[in-house]
Amino acid sequence: LRMPDHPPTAEIVSVGTELLLGQIADTNAQEIGKLLAELGFRHVHRQTVGDKLEHIVEALQLALNRADVVLTIGGLGPTEDDLTREAIAGAAGERLEVDPSIVAHLRKVLAERNIPWVDSQSRQALRPKSATPIPNPNGTAPGLICPKGKKSIVALPGPRAEFLPMLRGPVRDHLLALSGGETIVSRTLRIVGVGESIVEERVRELIGGTNPTVAPYAHPGEVHLRISARARSKASALKLIAPVESRIRELMADAIYGIDDESLESVLLDLLRVRKQTLAVAESCTGGLLGGRITNVPGSSDVFLGGVISYANSVKVAQLGVPAETLRLHGAVSRECALEMARGTRELVNADWALSVTGVAGPGGGSDEKPVGLVYLGCSGPGFEEIEERRFGGSRESIRIRSVVAALALLRKGLLSVG
Amino acid sequence: LRMPDHPPTAEIVSVGTELLLGQIADTNAQEIGKLLAELGFRHVHRQTVGDKLEHIVEALQLALNRADVVLTIGGLGPTEDDLTREAIAGAAGERLEVDPSIVAHLRKVLAERNIPWVDSQSRQALRPKSATPIPNPNGTAPGLICPKGKKSIVALPGPRAEFLPMLRGPVRDHLLALSGGETIVSRTLRIVGVGESIVEERVRELIGGTNPTVAPYAHPGEVHLRISARARSKASALKLIAPVESRIRELMADAIYGIDDESLESVLLDLLRVRKQTLAVAESCTGGLLGGRITNVPGSSDVFLGGVISYANSVKVAQLGVPAETLRLHGAVSRECALEMARGTRELVNADWALSVTGVAGPGGGSDEKPVGLVYLGCSGPGFEEIEERRFGGSRESIRIRSVVAALALLRKGLLSVG
Repeated sequence: LRMPDHPPTAEIVSVGTELLLGQIADTNAQEIGKLLAELGFRHVHRQTVGDKLEHIVEALQLALNRADVVLTIGGLGPTEDDLTREAIAGAAGERLEVDPSIVAHLRKVLAERNIPWVDSQSRQALRPKSATPIPNPNGTAPGLICPKGKKSIVALPGPRAEFLPMLRGPVRDHLLALSGGETIVSRTLRIVGVGESIVEERVRELIGGTNPTVAPYAHPGEVHLRISARARSKASALKLIAPVESRIRELMADAIYGIDDESLESVLLDLLRVRKQTLAVAESCTGGLLGGRITNVPGSSDVFLGGVISYANSVKVAQLGVPAETLRLHGAVSRECALEMARGTRELVNADWALSVTGVAGPGGGSDEKPVGLVYLGCSGPGFEEIEERRFGGSRESIRIRSVVAALALLRKGLLSVG
Repeated sequence: LRMPDHPPTAEIVSVGTELLLGQIADTNAQEIGKLLAELGFRHVHRQTVGDKLEHIVEALQLALNRADVVLTIGGLGPTEDDLTREAIAGAAGERLEVDPSIVAHLRKVLAERNIPWVDSQSRQALRPKSATPIPNPNGTAPGLICPKGKKSIVALPGPRAEFLPMLRGPVRDHLLALSGGETIVSRTLRIVGVGESIVEERVRELIGGTNPTVAPYAHPGEVHLRISARARSKASALKLIAPVESRIRELMADAIYGIDDESLESVLLDLLRVRKQTLAVAESCTGGLLGGRITNVPGSSDVFLGGVISYANSVKVAQLGVPAETLRLHGAVSRECALEMARGTRELVNADWALSVTGVAGPGGGSDEKPVGLVYLGCSGPGFEEIEERRFGGSRESIRIRSVVAALALLRKGLLSVG
């Protein structure tokens, strides 16, 4: 095999009518995508085709025209719908032949599983003449690496338990050799409290770059900025990333709450853990989603005590001690009620910090004065007390998720402000 | 638009570097796949391309060569990476122009959200000259339907909360019209408390059929059986569905809790509403997810009062009145504690019915006696009191979601048993 141009190009061809029918999500292609990024491949196209020979051959030919290595997923099983072997032979212009080493493997696996040999099994022992089988310790059909001129086709089986070990072992080694050692390292800066277009405005000077690249991704209530650099080693890539990260940190200041896989809730729980402080919640329009989000984090019980879902006003009064007067004068969706809720749950649960949420999630229940999307967030802690008014758009679901993120962002503000 | 050949052909072009990098699975394409199958489209190719103009244009041209309708996903946002509009104009050979109706929509949405207008937003108001915008009530950028000779390109936004309503509403209508009058009507029977393989076993006799077809879909803790019939009119299709539905109802009896879009929580809230009864929750390992799920339903405040997130034992004792003795003798993850929690929140909140959840969600905290996945669900109501022990597999997330569904299923059992 030649050393291809750098960076080499890879393309995935996912095979399976069940993918097109939407019966399953193509999470195998997602895994290959991550690996290709890690190894620094250029990867700009993916194709998905049904179990039809001519379509698979066509897709392989197109992929071979534009990529150095083509990875196929699926279609290696024993049934008549499994046509990837035939298609690779067709695209490579080769004949299929029986590989005795595969026959031996199949007989062994079937015997171990007490499955009688049926003739259809033998289809799995076919391979294009110049292909090398990739051992499959977790199933019957092997993978294949099939050279085609200076390029290659790598065939992986579809079942997850066979696919993943093969991808992360022998296929990774094959790709690493092809990549000539270049690697891509990415770092994601996670931002809360600033909208996507404003983030993009502020870091515009960096977005046109090619190495590293900087790209924004919007998530509900958050924006993630990904910095990706390509280099001969991880250390060199990190050196390229460092000055860009510093510049973004200057531009975005406090809005960056974490990096890579750190969720907002996990960062907050860590901040509280270090201070040996605890947290409680009082939820009205979010109905438990805030507590649910916080307790997504394993080990959150160190810090999170619980709280009250005060959906009905009677619960706000009886459990949280919100004065009936407050509800009468200002209503449940008010600055005053949010404050009483936060104070009430903090005292009730005996927590250091408390968050509250009360708002109109819609679609009903809005008025001119208090429209759908109006939400008050409260935070009460040692030396910090603040109520925030927000107006969210979108569906009930969207308003509730954004309320949860805004409440967490308010806690972060509180924790940072008291040092 | 002509009536295309039957069945018409559709092709999906998913746009987004984040898809190729494997940062997210392409679940939007999966949703379109299901819809195309339901509407009887031929659908044999899918392409995925990064955020690069020439690649998107190329993919659209290829797709237009082989399909009657091309559906794009993503790339409609305000950033410079959002290039789908430009690509469609390129592939259709049209110029982009500003659509005043989209500008008005953008200004309205941004004002509602208190987001200042920045110039980059105006990119979202561009559309190819002959394209029609598809309204987006859940976000900023509209979808687009762009004719190209006798064919069309339909552009959908990537964010799930904007994508799904647009797909299931106006895009479905557009596709239905293209599908040439034959209509497919589906009816989904929603089942809880019976596993997928058992459901499949029981209705096996019906699964091989072609019109109607019967297909099971697994959801966390639930199974949905979809019956789909194709006919010249909705009434004729429903006539084909009726006998199959009756037979399934015989085979599955009480396990069917609802149809089509009726969620388990909405069905339960309706049952309670009719009886003028109220509901409370006490959550430990789910940390608020149960309340969060119930309050996803608009109007849930008629019936749902709230409750207590008793994540820490101190809250179980102080708020719910679980005797310290119970925790000492049996632990927080026990039949006894689940019962006290349900009784405690029912009394505290003064509700007719109460649900409780306590368990080991993991990944830490398990023991030989109380392994990860062990969950107790409690239900206390007028004339009904029951504790259920379950052992769930999978991730922390999966255990928590299954716990929520199992708690709701237990309430359903209670409500049905007291008539």
